[in-house]
Order: sequence, then structure tokens, then C-alpha cells
Amino acid sequence: MYIYADNAATTKTSPAAIEAMTRCMEDFYGNPSSLHTVGQKAAEVLQKAREDVAEILGADFNEIYFTSGGSEADNQAIRSAATFGARKGKKHLISTTIEHHAVLHTLNKLEKEGFEVTLLPVGKDGIVDPKDLEAAIREDTALVTIMYANNEIGTLQPIDEIAEICAAKKVIFHTDAVQAVGHVPINVHEQKIDMLSLSAHKFNGPRGIGVLYAKRGVPLFNLIEGGAQERGRRAGTENLPAIVGMVTALKDAVTDMEAKEAKTAALRDRLIAGLSKVPHSVLNGDPVKRLPGNVNFCFEGIEGESLLLLLDEKGIAASSGSACTSGSLDPSHVLLAIGLPHEVAHGSLRLSINEDFTEDDIDYIVKAVPEVVNYLRDISPMWEDLEKGEKEHVI
Amino acid sequence: MYIYADNAATTKTSPAAIEAMTRCMEDFYGNPSSLHTVGQKAAEVLQKAREDVAEILGADFNEIYFTSGGSEADNQAIRSAATFGARKGKKHLISTTIEHHAVLHTLNKLEKEGFEVTLLPVGKDGIVDPKDLEAAIREDTALVTIMYANNEIGTLQPIDEIAEICAAKKVIFHTDAVQAVGHVPINVHEQKIDMLSLSAHKFNGPRGIGVLYAKRGVPLFNLIEGGAQERGRRAGTENLPAIVGMVTALKDAVTDMEAKEAKTAALRDRLIAGLSKVPHSVLNGDPVKRLPGNVNFCFEGIEGESLLLLLDEKGIAASSGSACTSGSLDPSHVLLAIGLPHEVAHGSLRLSINEDFTEDDIDYIVKAVPEVVNYLRDISPMWEDLEKGEKEHVI
Repeated sequence: MYIYADNAATTKTSPAAIEAMTRCMEDFYGNPSSLHTVGQKAAEVLQKAREDVAEILGADFNEIYFTSGGSEADNQAIRSAATFGARKGKKHLISTTIEHHAVLHTLNKLEKEGFEVTLLPVGKDGIVDPKDLEAAIREDTALVTIMYANNEIGTLQPIDEIAEICAAKKVIFHTDAVQAVGHVPINVHEQKIDMLSLSAHKFNGPRGIGVLYAKRGVPLFNLIEGGAQERGRRAGTENLPAIVGMVTALKDAVTDMEAKEAKTAALRDRLIAGLSKVPHSVLNGDPVKRLPGNVNFCFEGIEGESLLLLLDEKGIAASSGSACTSGSLDPSHVLLAIGLPHEVAHGSLRLSINEDFTEDDIDYIVKAVPEVVNYLRDISPMWEDLEKGEKEHVI
Repeated sequence: MYIYADNAATTKTSPAAIEAMTRCMEDFYGNPSSLHTVGQKAAEVLQKAREDVAEILGADFNEIYFTSGGSEADNQAIRSAATFGARKGKKHLISTTIEHHAVLHTLNKLEKEGFEVTLLPVGKDGIVDPKDLEAAIREDTALVTIMYANNEIGTLQPIDEIAEICAAKKVIFHTDAVQAVGHVPINVHEQKIDMLSLSAHKFNGPRGIGVLYAKRGVPLFNLIEGGAQERGRRAGTENLPAIVGMVTALKDAVTDMEAKEAKTAALRDRLIAGLSKVPHSVLNGDPVKRLPGNVNFCFEGIEGESLLLLLDEKGIAASSGSACTSGSLDPSHVLLAIGLPHEVAHGSLRLSINEDFTEDDIDYIVKAVPEVVNYLRDISPMWEDLEKGEKEHVI
């Protein structure tokens, strides 16, 4: 038995997506910019893919820019708003303390270039207060960038309210929706989202492909200069096989989404209920306003890495926070932002599931985790101090 | 019969590369940054791929950075040298008039940001004179970027001499080797190349993946900020399936390279000999110092696009210059740079072949092209003027 419960890090590419990619490489191998038949056939497939993505997101096809993934899309979105904002004297950017590093590091860099960045706090539930946003927006605010769903604790932000506020204040609103697209319903036009980033490998599509949606009229700055692909905004021969694989996976993801969401959420809640019985444990993030597949717990006295390795031995692939920072000794910035003390933030466990999980899978995890936690606590000097009463329990 | 003679635009991904990608997506689907078994297995595959690429290029594995392709690699290389050069007061960049737009447009942008750019001319053969380079290098030169082989006319530059000059003058040397890697032997350490860009889809590897080689000690600027992948220099979950596909294709490309190069060059020369018989035609680029698979001709009185479309009807996929600028009404900057007049530069034909071509394929092209050229000349008012002697032949 091997349970892959790390779908927030990356998903397994679906057989349908793999087949679509293979077929594309065999049948539509031309460069879509070439004038000959092979090229033009590829150009048609590209255009159809663009229209399909647009339809699923509730956008127009000419608002869809294919990128190499979510990080590139985030970088391009933020740098675009900053660059064009600066030309109008707007050098203030707003985000939150719990964004992905693709957002936070881009903002850090812009700060060094003379931009001012406000990072909104989140509550213990990991949710931004729209009132805080409203108060933070200034005359010179060029961009608000707030993630749709957090990659570690799965919290869903009040995106509609946030977007309304930005629209009313005429500030560009970008959302890193890498964890959300394909898992919860999104309609960019209806939700008044100006820019959105997504990544295919988070919904069983291939690696190395993503989308930046930018509403008509929102200018883009080129991160990668060169050929005139993507209407001159992103150079490089279009990665058609990956695009086709992404569209295949995205179509599958949004088919019967409500039913799949409900099924996954029920499994998630079963998992949360099971793990909540571990003494001195805490569920991170909001219990309801969270991704259907996300579970994130802290267990006092436990070091996250040991937990992962022992769970792996028991056939459970999990994560402590984000894969992008694995190996880092620093505790998660997200867990610190929701108010967890350093020593507890080190002991987090993220389990990211999907609708293909069975109740047996969940029950297996619910049985395995306390075993490992108990074993680790038994050999932990930190836990000994807590049990002896020499230190106080924090959770 | 359909002859795909546009391999410089993109190649068909080899069945071996497709199979390697599929196997990778099925068996090594973990995120290489994840600590569990699935992730660590993927990390091992990634490391092996990095070592394989390094070995083929004559580099060390920690000098290999995976990017989304050649354009991204070019952008990152140039921006890196510019950024770190500027910190030492070096704001002069040297390149040539015949570079790919990924290089030229990046340089344009840097020019607007206050850098000074010198574009070296090329001779009628499309080759840079190393003496011109030597004379152009200044105390404040931060970078020399000269392509290994031209994408339109296939000319091979005197890279070894260029690299020697840069090494002697202690200026960083980058080469856009997108058209060269997998087609001619390259060893970056032996050839004293500091930075090199390559793209997998130019040697029967997949789209959306490339490499930036940067010699130890040559600092890189992050184009895409975020996670700590690629030693912190390129964020985004590693595109492992594409990397594995690329390595498979690259290994195939360098196996028996000399024999394949010789076979392709012989076919190329047969094609050149055949097309040279068309009156008022000219071979663009050097007849010898050129990629084994590249043929580029101009036919006076002919409009390139019509030529392509009629050849396509006869089952030949070709190009007029670079796919990245297809649809553009401007004549090729490369053909203008080698001294062709505007009206001739409009009539170019690029045929890019490989070792799988047969002599029959070549002979078919040699028969088809003059038929189409004659037909187009018969209906061309420009040609009528030339024939009547009202205008003078240029070639």
C-alpha cells in the first residue's frame, strides 16, 4: 500500500493528459508560427486550446497567455502591474504574509527596486480581513495580489469581496490561483479578477505549463523577450503538447466538479476528525473555508521531517508545508503568520488528497499518524519536558 | 509524399524521447523537492539527467540550469551579465546584427535601461570577424553574446577564436547555441564558453525545456523568482518529464554525431548544388562553415510567402527565415545584415534537413523548387520588369 497524499506538491499526470500529449507530439509537431500545413495545423490546435481554457475560466481567448508554469505567471503578473504602475507614479503593492514564494520573493525584489510593499496579516484561520485591505489601499497602489487558496493550509480567501474592493478602488487585482484552479469553481469575469495565475501540474496536467490570465486592458510586461508568440508578451516556441495535456486535465477537473469537491471534502473531514483525536494537535487553517483536499496539522513536540520520513516508511507520502521549501530549516512563514510559535510550526504535516481516495485510505492514515506521533514523542526530549511539566503545552 | 524540411523551426519529438517522458510521468511523478520516496526517486532522476547533460556539454553538473527553453536561457544569461556587470560599472554589451530576437530584443530593452550595445557586423558570408570583436571590447564591456550558429542561414561563427579573445580580455562570453547543440560537437570547458543556451526541441527533444549552462563563478540573476529550485536561480517545479525527454534526445543526437553530420552535410550539399542551378538565385551564408542541415536561398523576383505556400502544396514544409517572425512583412534582419537588398531578402527559402532525409527527398525538392520559382516568376510584374531590362538583376 502506498498512499500519495502530496497532491498539493504535484499531482500525477492523468493517463488522458499523457495520451493527449503523445498524440500532439506525433500528429501536431509543427511550430504554430510556421506557415506550412504542419505549422498551421498546430496553430489551430493551439487556438482551440486557448479557447477551451478561456471558456473554463470565464475569460476571452485573447486574455489567456501560456507560460512555463505558476511561478512564471506570478512573476509576470506582479512585475507587469509594478512596471506600468510606476509609470503613473504608483509604486505601492499590497499582498499578504502567507503568499507563495513566487509572489513574496518577487515583491522583495521590487521593494529593493524602490517599490513599497504592504503585507496584510491573516487571522488564526489564515484568512485576510477585507477591511484590512480596504484600509491599506492608497492613491498610489498599483496592485493587490492575494492568493486564491493557500498552498500549505488550504485556506480559501474571500476573493469575491477582495475583488469588489479592488474594482471599486480601481486597483489591479491579481490572484495566485495555482492551488485553486481545477479544485474549486472560478469564473474570472464574474468574480472581477484582473489577473490570475495557474499551473497545470496541480490538477493532473503536465509540468512546465501554466497560464497567466490578464483581463483585456491590463498591460503585460515581457519577462521573456524574443519571438512574437503569445501576442508578443511571452517569447519562445509554444509548448503545444503540454498545453494540450493541460487542457485535457483541466476539462476533466471541472467535469462534475461539485460532486468531486463534495466527495473530497467529506474524505478530508473524515481525516480531520481522525487526526483531531491526537492529543496536543491542532488543525491549521479554517475548518470550512479550505480546499476540499487539504489537511494540515501541527503536533506538539514533533519535528516535521522525522514525521514525514516515518510516514513514508509506512507507505504515506506527505509533506510538511510546501515542497518548494523542503529541506529548509526555517519553519513555515505561513504557520508563523497564523500565530503558531516557532517550535510548533516545525511539526506540521500537510496531507493533500483528492476524490480518488477511499475511506480505507483515510482510515489507514488516521491509524498511522498517531502511531508515528507517539513513537516520536516517546523519543523526544522536548516532549519529555512537556510531560514532566517543565515546559507548558502550547496546543 | 510530405517532406518536413523545417527542422530549424522545430523538430518532431523522437519516439524514444516520448517514451522516456511517458515513463517518467508514470513512474517518477513526485516533486523532486519532496522528502518522501516518490519525491526522492524523482530527485535522483533529476540529478542523473543534470549529470548526463553536463557530460555531453563538457561541463560540471552544478553548471547546468534547466529553463523553459532557449529564449528564457538567452534572457537570463544576458540579464545576468548585464546586472552583475552594472554593479561594477560595466554597462557595455557586445553582440552581432544577426542574433535571434531572444537576444536582440533583450539587448534593446537593456539599451533603454541605460546600457550601451555594440552590434558587430557580419560579412557577406554571415560571419563575424574576430578582429572586429577585439576592437570593440572596452574596459566597461560586461558581456559578449554571439550565437553559435545562425537560425536562418546556418552560419557557424568562429566560436573558439571569439571565446579566446573574451577569455584574454576577461569578458564574459555567452553563446546562443540553440541551433548548434545536437548538430555539431560542442565542449564548453574546452572551448572556454562562459554561458550557453540550448533548446531541446531543436534536436528532437520536447518543447518547453532548455538549458542555461553557466560556468562556475559566473553569477546568475533570477528571471523567475520563487522556490529554491535550480540552486535558487530558477523557480518553479522542475519539469522532470521534459528534462528526461531532452536528455534522451540529446544522447541520441551526439551518438555517432560525426557520421550523421557528414551524411547530413552531403545531402545538404546535393540540395545546394541542385538549387544553385536556378538562374538568379543565391545561396545565403557560407557554403562550408554552416550547419550540416541548413540550406538558405534567395530567388530574385519571388515573394517568400508565395513560395512557401506552393511548396507546401507540393508536400514540402519549408520556411522563409525564422518561424518566430513568420507572418511579419519585414524582410529578415539576418539577410539584410549580409547585404542583400530589401527586394531580394523578401524571397528567401530556408530548408532545414537532417540525416533521415534520403537522396530521393533531396531530388524531389530540387525538382519542385524551380517549378514553383518559374511559375511565380511568370506571374510576377517585378520579374517582367527584370526580364524586359527595365530593372537590373541584382543577383
